[in-house]
Amino acid sequence: MILEIADIRIQAGRQAEFEDAIRHGIATVLSTSKGFIGARVQHGIESPERYVLMIEWATLEDHTEGFRGSPLFTAWRAIVGPFFDGPPNVEHFVAV
Amino acid sequence: MILEIADIRIQAGRQAEFEDAIRHGIATVLSTSKGFIGARVQHGIESPERYVLMIEWATLEDHTEGFRGSPLFTAWRAIVGPFFDGPPNVEHFVAV
Repeated sequence: MILEIADIRIQAGRQAEFEDAIRHGIATVLSTSKGFIGARVQHGIESPERYVLMIEWATLEDHTEGFRGSPLFTAWRAIVGPFFDGPPNVEHFVAV
Repeated sequence: MILEIADIRIQAGRQAEFEDAIRHGIATVLSTSKGFIGARVQHGIESPERYVLMIEWATLEDHTEGFRGSPLFTAWRAIVGPFFDGPPNVEHFVAV
């Protein structure tokens, strides 16, 4: 199992809209991708425009090849991308 | 409940030592602090010197005042600090 951590900055003042959008995107798009195990969204206290999205995937390739190479990625970015203030910082991790 | 996310860079090549140290520090120091609920350590795939430590605290103050203001913080930093390559980036989050 692999953890994707996406560090996201959104445009100021759009928190409520973004939270609705990301919930919708997870429920209708992300969670339908092969190898998706679960997702959590965390909202910054010190940095109110910062969100951390953590997604568990069965394998690294389920994210980097399966999801990113599918039409689901385009659908996902159409839902959440309009709120981004720059590209998210995305890396993958394994539990210690 | 609050999630602390600490983004840590360690000195190159010290992964095995650091992983032993952080496991030891969590078990013997961090987990004894008031309000500590749980911790996870994640190791970067793309950035092998990167670790993300996620700690659940009952309240923000359990971390920022209770833990940081106690001798436990000094003990914790003595265990894990020698491996750091610069100060960690630490912020707090609430679940969306």
